[in-house]
Amino acid sequence: MTALETALAATAAEVNRTLDALMPAMTGPEARVREAMAYGSLNGGKRLRPFLVVTSADLFGVPRSRAMRVAIALEYVHCYSLVHDDLPAMDDDDLRRGKPTTHIQFDEATAILAGDGLLTLAFEVLAEPETHDVAQVRTELVLSLARAAGMEGMVGGQMFDLQAEALRTGSLDLDAITRLQSMKTGALFRFACESGAILGQAPDSARKALRDYARDMGLAFQIADDLLDAEGTEEQVGKKVGKDAAAGKATFVSILGTDGARRKAREISDRAVKHLDSFGKKGDLLAQVARFVVDRRT
Amino acid sequence: MTALETALAATAAEVNRTLDALMPAMTGPEARVREAMAYGSLNGGKRLRPFLVVTSADLFGVPRSRAMRVAIALEYVHCYSLVHDDLPAMDDDDLRRGKPTTHIQFDEATAILAGDGLLTLAFEVLAEPETHDVAQVRTELVLSLARAAGMEGMVGGQMFDLQAEALRTGSLDLDAITRLQSMKTGALFRFACESGAILGQAPDSARKALRDYARDMGLAFQIADDLLDAEGTEEQVGKKVGKDAAAGKATFVSILGTDGARRKAREISDRAVKHLDSFGKKGDLLAQVARFVVDRRT
Repeated sequence: MTALETALAATAAEVNRTLDALMPAMTGPEARVREAMAYGSLNGGKRLRPFLVVTSADLFGVPRSRAMRVAIALEYVHCYSLVHDDLPAMDDDDLRRGKPTTHIQFDEATAILAGDGLLTLAFEVLAEPETHDVAQVRTELVLSLARAAGMEGMVGGQMFDLQAEALRTGSLDLDAITRLQSMKTGALFRFACESGAILGQAPDSARKALRDYARDMGLAFQIADDLLDAEGTEEQVGKKVGKDAAAGKATFVSILGTDGARRKAREISDRAVKHLDSFGKKGDLLAQVARFVVDRRT
Repeated sequence: MTALETALAATAAEVNRTLDALMPAMTGPEARVREAMAYGSLNGGKRLRPFLVVTSADLFGVPRSRAMRVAIALEYVHCYSLVHDDLPAMDDDDLRRGKPTTHIQFDEATAILAGDGLLTLAFEVLAEPETHDVAQVRTELVLSLARAAGMEGMVGGQMFDLQAEALRTGSLDLDAITRLQSMKTGALFRFACESGAILGQAPDSARKALRDYARDMGLAFQIADDLLDAEGTEEQVGKKVGKDAAAGKATFVSILGTDGARRKAREISDRAVKHLDSFGKKGDLLAQVARFVVDRRT
């Protein structure tokens, strides 16, 4: 394993423990929603977003326990979006990473509530005093996450994506796809990196550098995702592939071709790394992430 | 109209204007989610929760514009819960106050996203500096609303309710039903009243008095709701009635009978009013609310 892979695995293990630990214990019939929330969030993911939070926070010497709380809040939001996306009315997926999706394992009503519960819990965790002793930092985190996750961020991106399919605008151009992905997946990546700077009460220049890094890294991630969908095998990627082409969806690959998309991903990943210059050696791990998301096989 | 009815109508009009005004403008295909969010929240409701926020805040001389922002955030949460509750996988309701529900007017996927968007927007509005110039107040509002709306509050109450139905425990006793309602509907009422005290940076005693008032008022409200379902006509109440009995659901009425339930509602409403003693004359409007929720015909 590379140094990055070792660090990713260690963080993922810590994330898995903490995801459960930060959910209040429950008894009574309502405990079912907690079970579904835990099921939907302990999904075997790479935990890339939490890793970006703790790694960005490390640049500013933020205590691990604080960074981990923000990482968990963000992962709750990411996982709620997966639980709701998998619903029959949305992507209608029965499996995620080889396991039944939450509405299959439980039922649709429980999955809707579990998603709602995860989203709400994210803001609860951010607002609690344990996240930072300065209240201004906590409200900034809440505000940034709400903007990233909401109608002008992830939720808006989902709507954009559904509308593009419904209107059969298979002809989205590069600008439109870039904007769609910037909302749908990019916004949470930007929050991941910026939250480290917020926690560290870092100067605006560092904050901007991380946001720029995250924008490019997130875009490279998405182009690589499209490449995996076009070229990967189901076994290797761990989910259905070829879905975009089958649906006639415009993607970075359908517009640029596989070679063009690969070139573009590399180019944007290089640009992402450049934004880290001001952090010097301390930025190495984030630079490795930018290369990793392009070269990954899953 | 009574003084209370006049005040309720004036606040409802202001709420309707502000619900829309606090949603960011959107263009592009994703604007559909904003349309659905506006549709789902401009639903002709009484706006009782917002009224409780502004009336509680008035006790402490909180500027109207701040109280209204909190009122709107709470109403976004209430409305998101209605949009998700109406979904086919949940209560499967096609009509609400005589209008098609959000998933009928748009589609299920859009309704899911609109609910997610409203919930997220609520936290965004609370965290913005315009809500209060003291960041500590804003995080307290976020934390209280998240707890009220989440797995230990409203979402947990919904799960409890679904489980009670699924397990056919039509035999919930009075304590269980009281606990269920305290989570499902009571938690948002408690936030409504307590948020006024948070905004006003009021002493703990005032905060406790408002929480106690809200607990009893909310319970009286719920008993009256069960009575309307048992005795009202569809025309009068504005929604399907007799649903609880048809479903064999345990309610305050099925346990206490209509006379017993009515007596209990009055008794609890009186108790709610007593908690307002320390506010003197200033508590009059809240006292009227406690009487109104018991005597209302819709």
